[in-house]
Amino acid sequence: MDNELIQALKDCGAVKFGDFTLASGRKSNYYIDIKKATSDPGTLTLIAGRMVAIIKEQHMCVEAIGGVAVGGIPLATAVSLASGLPLVIVRKSLKDYGTGGRFIGDIEGRSLLMVEDVTTTGGSVIEAIRSLRDEGAIVDSVITVVDRDEGAQSGLNAMDVKLVPLVCASDLLGQ
Amino acid sequence: MDNELIQALKDCGAVKFGDFTLASGRKSNYYIDIKKATSDPGTLTLIAGRMVAIIKEQHMCVEAIGGVAVGGIPLATAVSLASGLPLVIVRKSLKDYGTGGRFIGDIEGRSLLMVEDVTTTGGSVIEAIRSLRDEGAIVDSVITVVDRDEGAQSGLNAMDVKLVPLVCASDLLGQ
Repeated sequence: MDNELIQALKDCGAVKFGDFTLASGRKSNYYIDIKKATSDPGTLTLIAGRMVAIIKEQHMCVEAIGGVAVGGIPLATAVSLASGLPLVIVRKSLKDYGTGGRFIGDIEGRSLLMVEDVTTTGGSVIEAIRSLRDEGAIVDSVITVVDRDEGAQSGLNAMDVKLVPLVCASDLLGQ
Repeated sequence: MDNELIQALKDCGAVKFGDFTLASGRKSNYYIDIKKATSDPGTLTLIAGRMVAIIKEQHMCVEAIGGVAVGGIPLATAVSLASGLPLVIVRKSLKDYGTGGRFIGDIEGRSLLMVEDVTTTGGSVIEAIRSLRDEGAIVDSVITVVDRDEGAQSGLNAMDVKLVPLVCASDLLGQ
């Protein structure tokens, strides 16, 4: 368990502990406002460093770093800068990109690592990976800052994508 | 004139010289595809370093770095990381942000430096600054990577905002 990172997430206000009622009506004893982490350069630097370490430790074959707009862009940019690998941005949905094209950056034939701030069901990154693969990109790994353990792992595994969380729900629940 | 930066923009394909017909029908002897620069970590690092140097040289009072989605986010993130100042993201328009709020990051009462990749008329950053000011942010400077010299300078000056370009059209036209 990455106590230094959990402490940093708490310190910048990205993770709060207490009794919360989520938008879904479900109760939770933690609450995540991950934008507090990506807008804080110290925390973002720490996160990017952890992700680059995982790329190396797991010998991931990565040629570019991808993030889904808007929330995933600061994270993907930070990992791109820390790793020296090019950045790819995936616009979220058809209505957002119009004629401008869905992807910013070269993807065809490239091995992409997708990075995410929070994964719940994994819906948005799963959809992004499908469209990236349709356009010829190779995507077999996602690193997420916090996995809420609500389906992303199995959803991604079902499409042969490995999900590596820096912090998972059980780490936070154990606090 | 910043020859090192102009060379980097050429090397990564962000600036091309030749005979081009722009979308407006106008002829131009250069063409800018600035996303090639922001998706290239080496060029983005160089740009961010230049912007941080300007903040210091001009003694700008800056408490956070702002960028307009989607294109301005990698740039604003890189300057946030290089300067240690927090990041603010301005979503582009009402249809894009819905209930999620227009701004990511704290803005009220804060002095923001806006960073832009390319300014033409400056329309999108002018609109962003108006809405930031409406919400209590202080914005008096914009740094842009390339100013096409097509009205952004006067449009911003008219609202008491200084525009500082790293490279301007005349620099490129002189190549």
